[in-house]
This record gives sequence, structure tokens and C-alpha cells, in this order.
Amino acid sequence: MNDSRFTPVDPVDLTARLVRCPSVTPVEGGALTLLTELLEPAGFECTRVDRNGTPNLFARWGRKGANRTFGFNGHTDVVPVGDAAAWTHDPFGGEIAEGYLWGRGATDMKSGVAAFAAAAVDFVRATPPDGAVVLTITGDEEGPSKDGTIALLDWMRTKGEAMSVCLVGEPTCPDRMGEMMKIGRRGSMSVTFQAQGVQGHSAYPHRARNPLHALVRLLDRLASEPLDHGTDHFDASTLAITTIDTGNSATNVIPARAMARVNIRFNDAHSSASIAQSLRDEADRVTAETGVTFELQVDVSGESFLTPPGDFVRLVTGAVTAETGVEPVLSTSGGTSDARFVKDHCPVVEFGLVGRTMHQVDERVSVDQIRQLKSIYSRILADYFA
Amino acid sequence: MNDSRFTPVDPVDLTARLVRCPSVTPVEGGALTLLTELLEPAGFECTRVDRNGTPNLFARWGRKGANRTFGFNGHTDVVPVGDAAAWTHDPFGGEIAEGYLWGRGATDMKSGVAAFAAAAVDFVRATPPDGAVVLTITGDEEGPSKDGTIALLDWMRTKGEAMSVCLVGEPTCPDRMGEMMKIGRRGSMSVTFQAQGVQGHSAYPHRARNPLHALVRLLDRLASEPLDHGTDHFDASTLAITTIDTGNSATNVIPARAMARVNIRFNDAHSSASIAQSLRDEADRVTAETGVTFELQVDVSGESFLTPPGDFVRLVTGAVTAETGVEPVLSTSGGTSDARFVKDHCPVVEFGLVGRTMHQVDERVSVDQIRQLKSIYSRILADYFA
Ligand SMILES: [Zn+2]
Ligand SMILES: [Zn+2]
Repeated sequence: MNDSRFTPVDPVDLTARLVRCPSVTPVEGGALTLLTELLEPAGFECTRVDRNGTPNLFARWGRKGANRTFGFNGHTDVVPVGDAAAWTHDPFGGEIAEGYLWGRGATDMKSGVAAFAAAAVDFVRATPPDGAVVLTITGDEEGPSKDGTIALLDWMRTKGEAMSVCLVGEPTCPDRMGEMMKIGRRGSMSVTFQAQGVQGHSAYPHRARNPLHALVRLLDRLASEPLDHGTDHFDASTLAITTIDTGNSATNVIPARAMARVNIRFNDAHSSASIAQSLRDEADRVTAETGVTFELQVDVSGESFLTPPGDFVRLVTGAVTAETGVEPVLSTSGGTSDARFVKDHCPVVEFGLVGRTMHQVDERVSVDQIRQLKSIYSRILADYFA
Repeated sequence: MNDSRFTPVDPVDLTARLVRCPSVTPVEGGALTLLTELLEPAGFECTRVDRNGTPNLFARWGRKGANRTFGFNGHTDVVPVGDAAAWTHDPFGGEIAEGYLWGRGATDMKSGVAAFAAAAVDFVRATPPDGAVVLTITGDEEGPSKDGTIALLDWMRTKGEAMSVCLVGEPTCPDRMGEMMKIGRRGSMSVTFQAQGVQGHSAYPHRARNPLHALVRLLDRLASEPLDHGTDHFDASTLAITTIDTGNSATNVIPARAMARVNIRFNDAHSSASIAQSLRDEADRVTAETGVTFELQVDVSGESFLTPPGDFVRLVTGAVTAETGVEPVLSTSGGTSDARFVKDHCPVVEFGLVGRTMHQVDERVSVDQIRQLKSIYSRILADYFA
């Protein structure tokens, strides 16, 4: 399908050049400039959508408001290199050796950004579609994520920009290229419990009201009773106690207060509100039994979401299977990603290469996988606009 | 029975003079000197048995090694005054007003020391007994108690000094004079649990081993299952969780370690060793269920002890009943006292006046109660040597 008048963009070379940009969150490091220099000559309208010092890039080929607008989302920021001396290759060298491209961000996710940018440029040049292609690339996915993809989506809303569907190019395959894509994510929330009892002397516990006795009862119940047993597309929700703190060094004193925090990853059987309510109910039961009261502070990182299997998901699985011979599992596992923001905008799925070495020393990516990933993204674009 | 050639010692005046000695632990404040000046002229051999800066007084009337040696034990040190501005009367003024003697240590326990010193002086002067009377008075009962009564008992052992029985003059009556004496005390111990699991990410709790989940299960079991339901002379043993600490502020991290401490007050159904073993067993059960291991550190403040009702106890209850018209309950309740050290030396009981205001602002004692207490101690001495 490629028009031979154009030299295709080499995604391996583009990844290497991106790795050489030292874009540790929130530093731009030249990465977005490099992409702009590639995209603009291909007809992409590029806009820097920086907010509070976070660099972000919006790029659109085609008409704003086109009926069919295919979106990609990714990030060029990377986590710090960690123990620099432990690296076999310069983490910002972009060296190729033993079939791998080495460096921080090689898998997470400069290769993903390079693959979709290369695919998009080749595609619009060779077969200009009846529609638009949008790239949303942030410099704050590894950081607090307050001024990254959120800022891009906020800006798009005010400007009348939109995506009909969006593919996030994060690594999604545990071991083998093509074996997994993500069609949703669990929600994530933390709840802090402040237990308030009545201080007293250890020798007379009946005259006190021990907040710790109530707290361990509540927490043991929360930790022992499963939230659910999984749903059609999700594993069981999980609850982890992450800290309990009192700070009482006096062995003869029953403290008045104690705190604990739990972190919950929840599937589509729940919302953060329904979980907060069930924790409140359980706490109230323990209050009824013990007299110790609980204050709950709820911090929601993201709700669970699902892009139910349908045309868009089929499009992606079909392209992955055609290019790799492997039919990807539809997964909702793992931590959070910026897909949690995009899902409020349009249907979103995630597909990328094998993420094994992400965030580690000697992060590296198979150069063959980068090429395969570009082919998959190219096929997705072709099939979407066919 | 008093010999009219001697002026009896006024225990109210003696208490007032002791209160005027600012003997906040470990300061002597003139209190032991004052007592020495009273006791020596009456024939008591007085020895200061100070250790590591803690002042202690040993006083004996009569022959060392006498077959019948009646001992008293008490302390002249006091807790700090707290909010000095909140006191109605000077905490070191020893003022008498509204039928009370006011000041820090008025009830705990300068009145007790004054009462037994006054009773002992009058008794040996008026009716010199065939035996000995020993007073052991420490300046470190309210502090760490490492160099107080223990030092006196250590010194006595090396010197061949002994008591046949001992009465500790701490306040023992909750509301009404004479209503309670103590014939034993619960033991006290603290146990620190270090839970060791495997650190991990909150999103993947099945890959970690959460020490907090194991810890709350263990602690909830310990707090929920009674140690016993009381014995003939003791209330039920108690367990209080006094602290749980982790210090993990990262909500996405399951910590590797966590600690908790419990304080246990146990009766004569247990020893500290038997309790430590049962905690170890319970921890091992939770380890078998969770894979989280526990290190236990055991700190024993004192074993439980009981002076079973017999001649000595009957002697004291008889004297109390005769002087007050109230038959004292034989109790083993409350915190620890120096009786826990004396019990290794000889049979020991505790009897004193009403301790309501001890350690509080406006600590005060009824002057009538001081006189009554001296009469009770005098009768006990008389009956013992009769
Ligand atoms: Zn990433
Ligand atoms: Zn005392």
C-alpha cells in the first residue's frame, strides 16, 4: 500500500533518536521537538500544549472535527536511570547491540511513540485518508500526571478537537509480541482510616477504648473478605493494607488515636463511591461493636473502565493477529495508565510491545519488535479508514 | 498501750514536713534526712543505701537477724506537680485547709510513710518488742524503679538483713478508708512483634506477602480471645495493643515489615514464660496461614504474685476492721508497685489510705485518714509482736 515516492520512516532510528533525548519527567529533553520536526513536514498541524511546566504535544493531520478521527496517545518522558554505573550501555545513548536498542525509555515508551509516529507519517503520505489522525503525546506520564494527558484533553475540549477512538501505545505484552492488549483498567483508590478511641492506662483497658483493637478487627475483616471474584473481563478486585501507624512508645499507655491506609484496585463491579460506602458500612459495624469511631479519607486515582469488545477492539486484535500470528488476550490487568483519562473522551484500548525491562537498569527493546509494532499500527490505520 | 513518758509522733505534722521536701524523682529533697532525724533518736540504726544517684533509706530497730522482723516499705519520691498554676495550694507547701493536707505526695505516699514511721517510733519506745522493726524507704518508686527498692533488697541480702513479713504503705482504698487491701499483683509484660513479609506493588498483592494482613489477623485474635476468666483472687488477665507502626507513606507499595506491641497484665494462672509461649504459638499459626514470619521480643516488668490469705493477711484485715469498722476486700487489682520486688524476699501485702487524688493537681489527704492510718499500723505492730 505504501506510495514508493516517499521514503518510509525508520522506527528503530526514530526510537534511538528519542532515547538520546534525556527526557526524565518533566524535562522535554528535545523529544517533542524531534517529533514536531518529523510530523510538520508530513502535514501534521503541531501545537505544544504545555501546562505548569509540563511539555505536551498535540498533532493533527486532516480536518478538525472530521467524522473519523483516529487517535494515538503516548509519552516521551522516562523514569530516572537509577544506578547509572550498573548499565551495560549508556542509558541515553540509543545504542543498538545484540539485536536490541538499549536505553531508558526504550520500551516505556519511546519505541511505542516512534512506531505510531512513523506509521502515521507513512500512512497519511501514502494514502491520505478521508478523516483525521491525531497524536497526543505527553511529557508527564511517569510523574504526577496532573498536567499531561489531562492537559491535552482539556485543551482539545476547549478547541473543539476530538478523537473518535484512541490507541495508547504503552507496552502491553508480558513475554511474547502480540499476546496481550488492554481493553480496560482496574480503578485505584486509597482510603485512610483515623480511629478515635479513648486513651487510658494499659493496666485498666476496660476504662479506655482502644482504637487499635477496633482497627485490627476492621482491617482483618477488610483483608479477609474478597471484594468480588472477578467479572467477565476483570480479575478479582484487591485490597492491600499499606500502612498502620500509631507512634506510641509508652508501653503503659493505650493511645487515643491510630491510623491505617488501604489501597484498592477494583474492577467494573464497583465504583470508588460504592467501595467507599462499603468500607464506611464495615467501619460503622466495628464502631457499633467497640465504640471506637472512624474517619475515612478517600483518594481516588481513577475509576475502573472497560472498552467492551466490539468493532474497535476487533480492528486491533485483527491487525495484531495478522502481523504476529498471535491472537492477543483482552486484558484489564496491571496498574494505571493515561488510558484512564482518555476513556472519558472516546473508546480507548492499549497495545504495545513487550515491557519486560521497563523502569529497570539495561532497559532495552528488540529492534524487530519495533518494526513489527510499526507494521501493526500501520495496518490498524489502514483498516480503520478502509 | 502507749507509754505516757513519750510524746507520740504526730503523723499529720510529719506528713506536712515531708510534703515540704520537694522530692520529685530522683531528688531526695530532704525527705530521707528528715526521717533519719526522727528515727535515730528512737533507736533506729539508719543507713543510706543510695545507688546510681537514687537515694534510699534502710532503718532497723532491734537486732539484725531477729526471728520476728516486721518490715514496712514505702517511697518519698513524688511525680512532678504538672500544671503548677492549676493548684489551689502550694504543691510543696504542706498546708492544711478544709480538713485536708494539700500537696504533691500527700496521698502517694508521704502520708503512708509518715504513718508507719510515726507508728514504729511510738511502738518501739512504748513497748520495745522481742524482735525487730525494719523500714525500707526508697526515692525511686515513681521513676524507673531500677535503683530503689531493688537496691535496698540487694543490699539487705549482702548484709544479712531480712524482713519476716512486709507491709507496703501505698494507698489501696478506692473511696472509703479501710475498704481494700492488696494481697498480690498481676504480672506485667510487653511483647513486640516484628512481622516480616515480602515487599511488593499494591496493584499485585498476590506477588507480595503483606506483613500487615498477617499482623492484623494475629492481633485481632490476640485481642478477641480472653487469656482467662479470672482466678480465685485475680481478675481476668488483659491484653492491650499499645502501638502498631509501619512508616510507609507510599500508597502503591506493600511494605516488607511492620511492628506492633502489646502490653499484658496477667494473673496467677500464667507466668510470663507461659504467655510468651502462647503468643509464639498463635504467631506460628498465622505464619502457617500467611507465610509472614514474626520475631517476638519479650520484656517482663514483673511476674504475678499472691500472698495467700493466712496469718499475716488476717492480722492486717483484723487491725483495719478494728480501727475503721470496715472489713477490707482482698484485692489484686491495679498496676504494679514495689511489692513485686518485696515478694521475692518475704510475704508482702499492701494497705494504705484512699488514693483518689494521687498524681493529680490538688493532691490532698484527709488529716483524719492519716491519723487513722497510724492507728492501724500501730495496731498491726502490736498484734504482730503480741
Ligand atoms: Zn509508560
Ligand atoms: Zn506510690
